[in-house]
Amino acid sequence: MKVVVLKFGGTSVGTIGKIKRVAKIIASYRKKNYKVIVVSSAMTGVTNDLVKKSLEISENFSESEYDVLLSSGEQVACSLIAGRLIHLGIKSRTWLAWQIPIFTSGPHKNSRINSINKNKIFKYLKDGGVPIIAGFQGINNHDRVTTIGRGGSDASAIMLSKFLKAEKCIIYTDVEGVFTTDPNKLKKAKKIKVISYEEMLEMASLGAKVMQPVSIQDARLNRIDIEVKSSYVRKPGTLITRKSKIINNKIITGISSTHNDSKVTLVGVRDKPGVAASIFKPLSTNSINVDMVVQNISENGKETDLTFTIKAEDLNKTKKIIKVNKDINFRKLIFEKGVSKISIIGVGMITTPGVTFRMFQALAKKKINIQVISTSEIKISVLIDKKNAKKALLALHKEFKLDK
Amino acid sequence: MKVVVLKFGGTSVGTIGKIKRVAKIIASYRKKNYKVIVVSSAMTGVTNDLVKKSLEISENFSESEYDVLLSSGEQVACSLIAGRLIHLGIKSRTWLAWQIPIFTSGPHKNSRINSINKNKIFKYLKDGGVPIIAGFQGINNHDRVTTIGRGGSDASAIMLSKFLKAEKCIIYTDVEGVFTTDPNKLKKAKKIKVISYEEMLEMASLGAKVMQPVSIQDARLNRIDIEVKSSYVRKPGTLITRKSKIINNKIITGISSTHNDSKVTLVGVRDKPGVAASIFKPLSTNSINVDMVVQNISENGKETDLTFTIKAEDLNKTKKIIKVNKDINFRKLIFEKGVSKISIIGVGMITTPGVTFRMFQALAKKKINIQVISTSEIKISVLIDKKNAKKALLALHKEFKLDK
Repeated sequence: MKVVVLKFGGTSVGTIGKIKRVAKIIASYRKKNYKVIVVSSAMTGVTNDLVKKSLEISENFSESEYDVLLSSGEQVACSLIAGRLIHLGIKSRTWLAWQIPIFTSGPHKNSRINSINKNKIFKYLKDGGVPIIAGFQGINNHDRVTTIGRGGSDASAIMLSKFLKAEKCIIYTDVEGVFTTDPNKLKKAKKIKVISYEEMLEMASLGAKVMQPVSIQDARLNRIDIEVKSSYVRKPGTLITRKSKIINNKIITGISSTHNDSKVTLVGVRDKPGVAASIFKPLSTNSINVDMVVQNISENGKETDLTFTIKAEDLNKTKKIIKVNKDINFRKLIFEKGVSKISIIGVGMITTPGVTFRMFQALAKKKINIQVISTSEIKISVLIDKKNAKKALLALHKEFKLDK
Repeated sequence: MKVVVLKFGGTSVGTIGKIKRVAKIIASYRKKNYKVIVVSSAMTGVTNDLVKKSLEISENFSESEYDVLLSSGEQVACSLIAGRLIHLGIKSRTWLAWQIPIFTSGPHKNSRINSINKNKIFKYLKDGGVPIIAGFQGINNHDRVTTIGRGGSDASAIMLSKFLKAEKCIIYTDVEGVFTTDPNKLKKAKKIKVISYEEMLEMASLGAKVMQPVSIQDARLNRIDIEVKSSYVRKPGTLITRKSKIINNKIITGISSTHNDSKVTLVGVRDKPGVAASIFKPLSTNSINVDMVVQNISENGKETDLTFTIKAEDLNKTKKIIKVNKDINFRKLIFEKGVSKISIIGVGMITTPGVTFRMFQALAKKKINIQVISTSEIKISVLIDKKNAKKALLALHKEFKLDK
């Protein structure tokens, strides 16, 4: 049994016309003798409208009722898709989370799928039906409706692919795939044909628009091939798969960039064990996300300089928190708005020496000063002045031949 | 345990502001030490919008998916009510049909409630919770979502009252109760304080706006007291109960009227057994509702005149059906548009002689000609010219002292 999971995002089912197109896409897979499982999000705008209603009822709306409220959106989209397939003469029906069931654990609004009972869906597929499964929802062991916080309907699609042993999980969305860099920032950006899970995870700033990292990680752990493609254009999308399946890998697969960061430097921090934790703990409890962290080697073994980046909108909050923090001593506090992080990502750099040098040289040629550097096995990130971001993107895109 | 079922119609929960008001009403019953069960319809307009969407998908939209689609509306309204009660510090949660469960049988779009598992709801009530139950929906024995065709959320409320042994079922709607006659047609119409199930059933043309006859019949069979009242005005509504509970009954409780009927007369029908069936069967199969039927005594035993009324919009269809009907012989076919049926209703007429006479005399005084008469134990209906309808209503309302 050749099973494929097709997941449609909110914009793909945003209007009756789009739902009709989605039904045609589903029908085309059936003609290719696939057993098709469909997962749908709510029609675009619906979820936001429901959230707005909940906030009008209470600023502190019940989390369990929030799940009941929001899950109605997927129910509507799914019944319309199933209705359209039946209209086209295709056996189909909706499957709500409780009917399968899809079991979740964790708090309301932020549950995770634990297991999916495959029996009924398997039987239905064997009987020639196309199950239309409400994404984003599950039930807990008290028979309450839950919603899947991170990843939402993508997570539903990945887990269905896992439990029903799908050959592939296709994520239909409003973009054509994953690009070498954000096409809105660089016109020369090219669609990537194939990318590894690891690279995709590192390209979070690009990937987040396409898929949540948590879903990519789920796919990686369960070795599920994902294709991200557009429901409007009939073109191949981007295949996300495991490294070993990728031949002729480029050294660099993509470049990500952030454009609204701030840099914080604590000069002359008393260098003793636990000092970094003392700085970052109150930031973390206040939901401030610290990105790059660099600590200079302390010459005398007593003092050190610590630099980190945060989102620009968190800057004022961060200032306050550091100033009232009595657990740390430092001589000076420096803030800088308007920095940009540029990262080159590629599994190819593991086996190719000199990538770092090429990156630095390409930036140097354009007289772009590098403020901070951090590296991982498949990624090199540099912090530069925001005004140079576009120039840097262009130079690196060319240097690593991503235009080709 | 003093249990009360409160049912809110679509207009009562039509906006966030109205839902907040509904939460206050619920809270007020809780203060009176009632265990409150709430049943809600979808927010007004939502169901129509969903039906519209289904028709855009397919003119022949799947009936099982229609039920999945429409039941989402109640889910939204219920979660908002529960969310508001929780906001007010009251223990509450939604209960969807599958969570209780509410078992139905019969076809999709038109199922009937067979049974309701009372255990979980009883336990929840004992624990001090206010269950908010999605009306209009159930599940069948294949675990599919169903909707209750006739009666909708009212039927849900009545059946919950039955299975959970409620003291009373209160139907909150956008009218203040049941009136002696339609207040839009007669300003002098008065709200009825108490009315028997039987009278309410006979007042279908008035009652339909308040409650579906099928729900009144369910209440009658299960001896459940219903109060119909407005969710906007804090006034007592109309109590619908059994005859034996009603003291000081008026002779006539209410007057109903139709204003858009047509009269059909077949003159000189060959009078043989089965002829009436031959006339009415093809009308019935074409969903034409025949109301009053009068057959004159045939003088010679060979021919008879048959008169019946139908809705004006069915007139052309009826003409065609009769003309092509080869099973019947008649000399002449007469149609008359613009007739009106006026009915006086009251259990009091069983024990009070002369009601018919008083009705005819009151109409005669106003020079209103009676075309057809039909009677039941607690109702007398006459067919008159539509142009006299208002005059007749006024005369009868006064004659039977309904203004008082």
